[in-house]
Amino acid sequence: MRFTTKASSNGVVEREFTLGDITGVQWSPETSTNRAPLVLMGHGGGLHKKTPGLVARAQEAVTSWGFIVVAIDAPGHGDRVRTGEDEQARGDLRQAATAGDTERFASVSMRYMDSLAERAVPEWRAVLDAFQELPEIGADAPIGYGGGMSLGSAIGVPLAAAEPRIAAAVFGGGFFVSEAVLEAARRITVPIQFLLPLDEENVDRGSVLALFDAFASKDKTLLANPGTHRAMRWVGVDKEFLTRQLSQTGASPV
Amino acid sequence: MRFTTKASSNGVVEREFTLGDITGVQWSPETSTNRAPLVLMGHGGGLHKKTPGLVARAQEAVTSWGFIVVAIDAPGHGDRVRTGEDEQARGDLRQAATAGDTERFASVSMRYMDSLAERAVPEWRAVLDAFQELPEIGADAPIGYGGGMSLGSAIGVPLAAAEPRIAAAVFGGGFFVSEAVLEAARRITVPIQFLLPLDEENVDRGSVLALFDAFASKDKTLLANPGTHRAMRWVGVDKEFLTRQLSQTGASPV
Repeated sequence: MRFTTKASSNGVVEREFTLGDITGVQWSPETSTNRAPLVLMGHGGGLHKKTPGLVARAQEAVTSWGFIVVAIDAPGHGDRVRTGEDEQARGDLRQAATAGDTERFASVSMRYMDSLAERAVPEWRAVLDAFQELPEIGADAPIGYGGGMSLGSAIGVPLAAAEPRIAAAVFGGGFFVSEAVLEAARRITVPIQFLLPLDEENVDRGSVLALFDAFASKDKTLLANPGTHRAMRWVGVDKEFLTRQLSQTGASPV
Repeated sequence: MRFTTKASSNGVVEREFTLGDITGVQWSPETSTNRAPLVLMGHGGGLHKKTPGLVARAQEAVTSWGFIVVAIDAPGHGDRVRTGEDEQARGDLRQAATAGDTERFASVSMRYMDSLAERAVPEWRAVLDAFQELPEIGADAPIGYGGGMSLGSAIGVPLAAAEPRIAAAVFGGGFFVSEAVLEAARRITVPIQFLLPLDEENVDRGSVLALFDAFASKDKTLLANPGTHRAMRWVGVDKEFLTRQLSQTGASPV
């Protein structure tokens, strides 16, 4: 892993990095911490690792809780090279959207997100390995998945199912839930906070509720607010969820 | 209004009162407060004003936020006289439950809860009038409805629709939602926190989601957790909801 840039503002250090083909970014407290909890964040479909909403959540997690936050570009997103499959899927999605063919849009979207997850899960695990080698994190730092919605969960759910190091996770709706994602959810037992925008334009509410039902976790909370796919107001969120869970596994909050 | 008993423990003063036929209880901080926010709590069907879960929530509201909490027995419940209608409805519900006639149970339950709400709403308003005359509360203390589920919401929703003094409300599922309750929800615009037990045995989840959708409030949050009608674990609840809302209307928390 190679850190390529470093900038600092308002108590948060931002460092971009590469690991092989993977492009990522880390936010951490300016004052050095020891064995800080590590929180992974994923961006939505078509977006990238420094999408404003993600950056804002990451900075809050650093300044409020002393977390170290890591985000990576999903395959074919942000600074990553697009493969022929990426270009094809993007074209197909555009075409289905233009034609108003919602069924085709849903099926292409599910297939593409499943494929992105297959590529992204081993990438995330390699990134985790690399970060655990850093002395300020270490092999036993508590690790959480900090969201987000849509592609961030289409990748995050299979990741949390595959990765026993993830001790708690925040997921959300806003995407077409494939059989592969449902199957992964049934293998997840760690505490879950799940965010559902109620006025989502494209995705049927029932399919997202079925995903929430599928998690095997005993400790899972669904939080639903009015709001569309791109414009949600997360009032009433239990902001202490991750810090409570990751503290239980050994860390202490700021 | 006549206070009939007074007891004090762990910083909370409990005083029972009567107002005409109405039997109620007030919990308040031991150290006197001025213009404390007033929070109304309702109990579930077949229960009473001092049900353990309600008492625990009331005591927490007093000690954490300095609220004054008031609960009254619903008509035909607790220390109240049962009318012929109450006895008839209880008999019908028992009979339908024994016969496993879920449709009849639902229809009797909706009709009876609507009738209880018709009687309870003017009672609550009279209790509010009486409490606003107390110097420690006063005419401009912020007022919230603090739950609960089931009958507490079958009465609370029509109450909040009829009563402009209620500035924020916590409601929940666990009951058969009648047309009258839906109609009342459409007239409510204050901030709402709504609790939904996901493993409710009797009541269809869809009808409760339809109730949540019906609230005209822009600021409304649905919180769902695993749990049955009688056994819910409210992890991940936004406990500061009421104090935030009632503080915005002028009060200051402890």
